[in-house]
Amino acid sequence: MSKKAILIICDGMGDRPVKEYDYKTPLEAANTPNLNKLAEEGLVGLMDPISPGIRPGSDVAHLAILGYNPYECYAGRGSLEAAGAGIQLKPGDIAFRANFATVNEDLTIVDRRAGRIKTGIKELAEAINQIKIESVNGVSVEFYPTIEHRGVLIFRGEKLSKNVSDTDPHEIGVKPLKSKPLDDSVEAERMAKALNEFTEKSFHVLKNHQINLNRVKIGEKPANIILARGAGSYFKLKTFQEKYGIKTAAIAAVALVKGVCRIAGMEIIDVKGATGGLNTNFNGKADEAAKAIKHYDFVFLHVKATDVAGHDGNFKAKVEAIENIDKMIGRLIDQLDLNETYVTITADHCTPINFKDHSGDPVPILIHGPETFHSEIKKFCEKTASQGNLCRIKGIDIMAILTNYMGISEKFGY
Amino acid sequence: MSKKAILIICDGMGDRPVKEYDYKTPLEAANTPNLNKLAEEGLVGLMDPISPGIRPGSDVAHLAILGYNPYECYAGRGSLEAAGAGIQLKPGDIAFRANFATVNEDLTIVDRRAGRIKTGIKELAEAINQIKIESVNGVSVEFYPTIEHRGVLIFRGEKLSKNVSDTDPHEIGVKPLKSKPLDDSVEAERMAKALNEFTEKSFHVLKNHQINLNRVKIGEKPANIILARGAGSYFKLKTFQEKYGIKTAAIAAVALVKGVCRIAGMEIIDVKGATGGLNTNFNGKADEAAKAIKHYDFVFLHVKATDVAGHDGNFKAKVEAIENIDKMIGRLIDQLDLNETYVTITADHCTPINFKDHSGDPVPILIHGPETFHSEIKKFCEKTASQGNLCRIKGIDIMAILTNYMGISEKFGY
Repeated sequence: MSKKAILIICDGMGDRPVKEYDYKTPLEAANTPNLNKLAEEGLVGLMDPISPGIRPGSDVAHLAILGYNPYECYAGRGSLEAAGAGIQLKPGDIAFRANFATVNEDLTIVDRRAGRIKTGIKELAEAINQIKIESVNGVSVEFYPTIEHRGVLIFRGEKLSKNVSDTDPHEIGVKPLKSKPLDDSVEAERMAKALNEFTEKSFHVLKNHQINLNRVKIGEKPANIILARGAGSYFKLKTFQEKYGIKTAAIAAVALVKGVCRIAGMEIIDVKGATGGLNTNFNGKADEAAKAIKHYDFVFLHVKATDVAGHDGNFKAKVEAIENIDKMIGRLIDQLDLNETYVTITADHCTPINFKDHSGDPVPILIHGPETFHSEIKKFCEKTASQGNLCRIKGIDIMAILTNYMGISEKFGY
Repeated sequence: MSKKAILIICDGMGDRPVKEYDYKTPLEAANTPNLNKLAEEGLVGLMDPISPGIRPGSDVAHLAILGYNPYECYAGRGSLEAAGAGIQLKPGDIAFRANFATVNEDLTIVDRRAGRIKTGIKELAEAINQIKIESVNGVSVEFYPTIEHRGVLIFRGEKLSKNVSDTDPHEIGVKPLKSKPLDDSVEAERMAKALNEFTEKSFHVLKNHQINLNRVKIGEKPANIILARGAGSYFKLKTFQEKYGIKTAAIAAVALVKGVCRIAGMEIIDVKGATGGLNTNFNGKADEAAKAIKHYDFVFLHVKATDVAGHDGNFKAKVEAIENIDKMIGRLIDQLDLNETYVTITADHCTPINFKDHSGDPVPILIHGPETFHSEIKKFCEKTASQGNLCRIKGIDIMAILTNYMGISEKFGY
């Protein structure tokens, strides 16, 4: 009989030895009785999300971990953001991750997140959606706000390419960038032109909007321009149902990760209080995952908190996030039949607290289940993982290993 | 001076921890003084025949282990079966592994192996070879019986494709399947049509054949239909002679494995009493290998017994097969100059006794020779292999490693 599997990704959990903390990693410093137990009884090793040393984005790492070769299928962040927001792209569409931002009169960026604007977003979006692109023929633009300052920007029309640069400079004190074509094609040129026109017009439409005049009046930053990044085009993946004939669900708060899961054909389960932050509802995630695995063959569970702490360079917050994850896992496995369910725990990449960004180091991984060998490793962390019985694998191997143990993979050859 | 090498494949030897036997694997439970000694003095590690988690057929696994990328060269089982039977395919030919089977009047399959028929095979084959294909133009068919119920079926003619489904349903109590084209090509359609016509006609030719009437009279199952599976087309490999400039021989009883070796350009050495079963002539294999390595640079030695026990789900039989292999290896190395010869022992895949089929788990491997490091591992098994000094390699790496040690590989670059 085939088995079930839960795959838990602790975003950015891996780290490096931190001098200020006795050369420990946050995972090493954290008290993790549940992770340790699963590690001791299961396979433990190192996992390179893409390949040794390659620094992956969360989107690319998740594609690989879910069994899709990102070198073959990755079509840019924007398309995953769109999928995460539930927007169906059509072939030819180009999507961007977009932010409401605040610029002053000479267009210098004051805040890339417009004071993390929470109200009046709908009205501002309606104004933006009046914008007509005139500098290139036959192209329309749509803006979809998602959470707070975040949104998805979609250009539709003929002859557009995702091969253009961002308008978001990723820093304050400078002006929005002009988008540039990244190749010699007409498509890239048209796309850059349309985006630049849109960016300019977004400022004109937003700067004197009543919502923004009111924000300024009460001392809040106006959301007076749209910054775009991560151009992406339509793409399709073979779903888990098509690949393995199984029913799958995903628990993830972050749009980008949700997008990957949705394109992989997973049912998205929303958890009350799941924020994608340090304060997310860990208990709720555990309970929903335990509930879901009763009805699905495979459940994907994503926690962002560790990555947030890594980007903040906050060792203690990362330790706390890991300890919260450990409790979440304890609560989850208490509700599982471990004779029927494989539990895999790993990270999509390292976000070392001294580097404050994704690094290309391998991450620790554990695979616990009814037929795995026991690693006998007492503490789950980066150092012990390098001595583990799984040795060193790649992200793209994970689904092959899991479907093999689940008893649902097809034989290659006779 | 260049060294020699013997590569021993214990088919399906790898396994998983078995609850009923104190979570030991058959290899772990077996008494293997010779394997242990070679492991201690040699390189030990895990080997993924194809890639972690991928479940390989024996054909595909052997191709990889012998240094051929099966994703590039694998052309279906039938062509390897044909080669194993010594039949030279021509470009355009399509070959199937075929079985004499027993069906009753309404074509329900009673026995997929026609009671493992042993006599009258030649006469039945002659009758089958009278069959003319009429539903598609310019196609002829030839049937070559091999051992007992087994045979190879070859379709020759223009515009045929291997991209068709089996007529063998792989179970009893049902009727033979209609072969279906697996793509939209004319070639696949023609092939399926020809195979279906052949299958029907094989029943008409065989059902009232005197040999079968006699079988029924003495209470034996008639061999009254031919079931086909594993369509394969002609393919060519660069031989070991061409790749490495060496003379090679293979000792293998199983047609599929013989086929791979023959296409790789190896001389096939037949061993009296080698059956491909649990009762094979282990001593004879050892002696023939020891003799062969005097005349050849590289000897490939295959033992099927472990796989048979795995498919049967028989722990004790697998332990016994492994202990017989261990004795065979002891007898072999007593006759070798280990200062001149590398000895590699591994499996082509796991056939876990609780899974009863090939799994995608890694297998243990040892490489012993004059210039290898010593692993210091005292017991050769799956668990210790994960801690070995070879770490984790892939099947496709093995020949590169061996020819490197043998001193016969070419440099890549200057």
